[in-house]
Amino acid sequence: MEINLVSDTVTKPTQEMLRAMFKAEVGDDVYKQDPTVIELEARVAEMFGMEAGLFFPSGTMANQTAIKLHTQPGEQLIADKWAHVYNYEGGGASFNSGVSCCLLNGNRGMITAGQVAGSINDPEFYHSPLTSLVCVENTTNKGGGACYDFEEFKKIRKVCDANNLKFHLDGARIWNALVATNDNPKNYGKVFDTISVCLSKGLGAPIGSLLLSDKATIHRALRIRKILGGGMRQVGYLAAAGIYALDNNIERLADDHRRAKELGAVLEKLNWVEKVEPVETNILIFSVRFNIDEAVLIEKLKQKGISISTMGHGKLRIVTHLDYREVMHTYVMETLEKL
Amino acid sequence: MEINLVSDTVTKPTQEMLRAMFKAEVGDDVYKQDPTVIELEARVAEMFGMEAGLFFPSGTMANQTAIKLHTQPGEQLIADKWAHVYNYEGGGASFNSGVSCCLLNGNRGMITAGQVAGSINDPEFYHSPLTSLVCVENTTNKGGGACYDFEEFKKIRKVCDANNLKFHLDGARIWNALVATNDNPKNYGKVFDTISVCLSKGLGAPIGSLLLSDKATIHRALRIRKILGGGMRQVGYLAAAGIYALDNNIERLADDHRRAKELGAVLEKLNWVEKVEPVETNILIFSVRFNIDEAVLIEKLKQKGISISTMGHGKLRIVTHLDYREVMHTYVMETLEKL
Amino acid sequence: MEINLVSDTVTKPTQEMLRAMFKAEVGDDVYKQDPTVIELEARVAEMFGMEAGLFFPSGTMANQTAIKLHTQPGEQLIADKWAHVYNYEGGGASFNSGVSCCLLNGNRGMITAGQVAGSINDPEFYHSPLTSLVCVENTTNKGGGACYDFEEFKKIRKVCDANNLKFHLDGARIWNALVATNDNPKNYGKVFDTISVCLSKGLGAPIGSLLLSDKATIHRALRIRKILGGGMRQVGYLAAAGIYALDNNIERLADDHRRAKELGAVLEKLNWVEKVEPVETNILIFSVRFNIDEAVLIEKLKQKGISISTMGHGKLRIVTHLDYREVMHTYVMETLEKL
Amino acid sequence: MEINLVSDTVTKPTQEMLRAMFKAEVGDDVYKQDPTVIELEARVAEMFGMEAGLFFPSGTMANQTAIKLHTQPGEQLIADKWAHVYNYEGGGASFNSGVSCCLLNGNRGMITAGQVAGSINDPEFYHSPLTSLVCVENTTNKGGGACYDFEEFKKIRKVCDANNLKFHLDGARIWNALVATNDNPKNYGKVFDTISVCLSKGLGAPIGSLLLSDKATIHRALRIRKILGGGMRQVGYLAAAGIYALDNNIERLADDHRRAKELGAVLEKLNWVEKVEPVETNILIFSVRFNIDEAVLIEKLKQKGISISTMGHGKLRIVTHLDYREVMHTYVMETLEKL
Repeated sequence: MEINLVSDTVTKPTQEMLRAMFKAEVGDDVYKQDPTVIELEARVAEMFGMEAGLFFPSGTMANQTAIKLHTQPGEQLIADKWAHVYNYEGGGASFNSGVSCCLLNGNRGMITAGQVAGSINDPEFYHSPLTSLVCVENTTNKGGGACYDFEEFKKIRKVCDANNLKFHLDGARIWNALVATNDNPKNYGKVFDTISVCLSKGLGAPIGSLLLSDKATIHRALRIRKILGGGMRQVGYLAAAGIYALDNNIERLADDHRRAKELGAVLEKLNWVEKVEPVETNILIFSVRFNIDEAVLIEKLKQKGISISTMGHGKLRIVTHLDYREVMHTYVMETLEKL
Repeated sequence: MEINLVSDTVTKPTQEMLRAMFKAEVGDDVYKQDPTVIELEARVAEMFGMEAGLFFPSGTMANQTAIKLHTQPGEQLIADKWAHVYNYEGGGASFNSGVSCCLLNGNRGMITAGQVAGSINDPEFYHSPLTSLVCVENTTNKGGGACYDFEEFKKIRKVCDANNLKFHLDGARIWNALVATNDNPKNYGKVFDTISVCLSKGLGAPIGSLLLSDKATIHRALRIRKILGGGMRQVGYLAAAGIYALDNNIERLADDHRRAKELGAVLEKLNWVEKVEPVETNILIFSVRFNIDEAVLIEKLKQKGISISTMGHGKLRIVTHLDYREVMHTYVMETLEKL
Repeated sequence: MEINLVSDTVTKPTQEMLRAMFKAEVGDDVYKQDPTVIELEARVAEMFGMEAGLFFPSGTMANQTAIKLHTQPGEQLIADKWAHVYNYEGGGASFNSGVSCCLLNGNRGMITAGQVAGSINDPEFYHSPLTSLVCVENTTNKGGGACYDFEEFKKIRKVCDANNLKFHLDGARIWNALVATNDNPKNYGKVFDTISVCLSKGLGAPIGSLLLSDKATIHRALRIRKILGGGMRQVGYLAAAGIYALDNNIERLADDHRRAKELGAVLEKLNWVEKVEPVETNILIFSVRFNIDEAVLIEKLKQKGISISTMGHGKLRIVTHLDYREVMHTYVMETLEKL
Repeated sequence: MEINLVSDTVTKPTQEMLRAMFKAEVGDDVYKQDPTVIELEARVAEMFGMEAGLFFPSGTMANQTAIKLHTQPGEQLIADKWAHVYNYEGGGASFNSGVSCCLLNGNRGMITAGQVAGSINDPEFYHSPLTSLVCVENTTNKGGGACYDFEEFKKIRKVCDANNLKFHLDGARIWNALVATNDNPKNYGKVFDTISVCLSKGLGAPIGSLLLSDKATIHRALRIRKILGGGMRQVGYLAAAGIYALDNNIERLADDHRRAKELGAVLEKLNWVEKVEPVETNILIFSVRFNIDEAVLIEKLKQKGISISTMGHGKLRIVTHLDYREVMHTYVMETLEKL
């Protein structure tokens, strides 16, 4: 039994999802002639109270396109210091858009309206970059799957409106946040200028993200997607997996969350564990005592068939997902207790 | 019967290809753990005498990555005036790489070593951009599917070596060129620094291109692909279609070429046709008499179920492909004759 | 006697200009506290019927800033194939602004409204770059100092308006054009979105160009100038030279033009000269017979104290200017006749 | 009596400096024919143990050029959170070079080798930007004129060598550091890949900075300077001011330092002053008690003819310089004591 808890991106489609893909009606999406893609884009946009959506080969490209849509080179975006757009998109914000990042010291990856307001450069002081965009992540990745209080988004929106800033949501794990908070996704469309959502993490589809916005912005996004090389042909096979996931794999995320919490409860009792971060969704971050070598711990678990990953500095990360089933869960909990 | 001769990108996978796709063994390709992708990359690289390959969601991204790998912002590439990298990649050369294009007046999209040699900026004259890259297309797209004589590539390579230039092949339709010329693809690896090849045109796969080069360059390409947002997860489904196509769909391109030539022969006899460009592969470009309205012609054909496209200025384009079968071909030839 | 006819940039300030420079009242222009700079900016803007001006260390930076102001990365500008912004600004259009150039085959560096209209990419066809800017030069540099008919500018403006394009004038030698055509500079402000003018060519100031536009655009230009590193401190010394030149060195450009024409007349009679391009202002381009080695000719003249430059392919260039005085002119004409 | 303590950039040339400028021998520096510029470049390069120098219109352009020389788009530089290159160059690092900044929490603007070592991204982890450059400032601007211990530079150099990083010094106020520490500037050339030095702050020249490096790098810098628009014509007038300043205005910086320290001593005794930062050179940063409104304080001083500036959050900055003479100093000290 190989149990991979490194990331929720490792899931493979089930036979049912594969069947849905296999029988998808497709067309050439570069000419916008793929009916399955069109259906998926419309459906997700509607779900989040947005006018239009666009399929992307990756969440990185969806986020990078959003940054480009909202900025001119030389401008600055505000994000948490752990933001995916700054840390894990290869330096794309500066490469693709020529923008710099003003990083805030948030709480578990979440920033506040007050912090945003305090870090906007005076637009008349032309020595400093013009602030033009705020990016948030929900749930936060490096912040351990933490979920924003939706009220904070509304407050940040007000700061954005008052300062002529755009507001983007990196919703790589938005489905987890929705399940955990019971937020109505329709409200998201009222608060954000753009939202990226991912199909290939918790939802279990093999490939794909969408960017959601108003029609005019998505029209412009099509051009950016082309430039970045994200225009693909018979994409319906991938879109069909997304539609299947929307129908079948959202509610079950609650299982991933429960299992992550149960793992957290187990870890908290172990004497070699220093601290377990609060578990809100499917990501569990914990740190080990200073005398424990994390590399040794990871290796030990690997020998027992369990893969987890390090975040450096004694922090480790476990991510639960669709392919982590109950029988594996029981085994992992027992293994951790006995370690 | 709907017959789409607008492009060879519109083909849809056959049932056999679909079966190959959905039984593919997959993994997370971002972590380089997808065995089917690895197999495809190795196989195509080997085929072209290159050390390594990398899967891309589009030919545009493969070409754009090549340009980025070979240049620094401010530099200049040399290409034919009809080059895809200049005309149809959304301005990506300047957007992604900050490079300008020195466009040559080639013959049917093909440039000569002499033309290249004559358009290299003096590297000491720092007012002009530094020339650092030559890009060619084989077959040429806007040039009507024309095929280079391989000897010309060798001559251009010599000019590149003498002037410290890199040499990239946009091989969107390289398979057509190989079938038409009987060139040994292994020789290509000796001449070019990078080659992009496409799976979703003549070969009939739904999505995907590869970039081929030496190991160190492909290692750097992985980073560029990430930045552009081309890192995808369970890509094996798409790679499997590519492998299937390599096994089954290369030799049959000769049928596409024959049909294109036959269509050309029919057109040449028609009194409303001004000129038919030489047909070497699967692209047929012809121009109509000055008193013929191309929009009307296109509409007339559409009413008979046949879609073709205009290139402007009285020029029209027909592209044959995998989904254009003999029965359709007979019908199209009859329809043209009767028009 | 050393006579440098390579360029009109080689002029050195006269004693009077130097005196004007070193008694200038100055301040820190980064804080917009230099009164002499402010005076120059206002005066030139007013002269060209524009609201505001901004001092730049070079014409290249003024042009590059204009391109940046009017475009987003990935977009395309239209210009003559000989345009300075494409050929002699180090590839800056793509480096600084990420834009590509659509180069037209103009007449002596001048393009027509019809050519512009015919080269605008369809904005809905997102595979091609979005056309957003037209750049013209007056007089043309590589085109031999040719002057536009102002009516053509008006026609191009109409094409721009109809297609949502901006219109920039590279006025590196606009003073020569004004003197040659008697155009009223005030009309220029009605036609162009931005104009760059140069102080250090025909006018004889040591350093400096200005960009002219409406107030809002110049306000944005200040930020671009800062980013490119063109914000300088006590610039009044340089601005004072510009003010002096406006007062004293415009009308006398007619002498430069007369001398260039006289040199042209001499050359036309020489049997080793193939062709003399029409001379309209201070630039004279001529070509030599195929059996004449231009390098030898240049060297011969150099031995007689006269420097001129080659444009390659048998073409040579002579530029008259403030430091080319009558006594030198007589000598050069005699020398050419005797050569 | 108007006393401007806002910045040391506000100094105006003395009559002696103006005379030196006025009689400078000049040429066209774009063609590298200005003897005074060549003399200055050689002299400053030699002074810092470097092979070559290049004149720039601003320190921002010299720094931005250095960043471009050492990086490829998408890469990352390491600097202190208060670094001028991140905060006050208009977002140029991302605009001009497409690089992001990893900002460290230094001490008064100074970072340590240990901090640098701890913030280099793993070059094999391609999701994060490739770290390729370290930038330091000496003295620090926002850090209150603090001076690095030269030993720390040597340690950072070792970290750079071990990790394939370049090392750039923003020496906007390097002259103050040299005077305060008695460091031998020749040693700087052994430690840094590039150094920018400024002529228009403490040294009192009106315009200009230089970038210093090895010959090959400066050769490449010429091209970048051209692209950014920093190529100017008869620059010798400005270079002459620099040469005069090197001869006459370095040692006297000790007076600026003494005066800043004396002002600090006065401020420390005042009951409305919360804290005075250590004064090492010509910058003095102090904070006022929470109940003091800094805007009111600045206004009060202004009414007495003294201009100082705020850094926000209750912090104020005073900068001493060439134009702040003893008689002014006495007056300012008395005024502060009586306030």
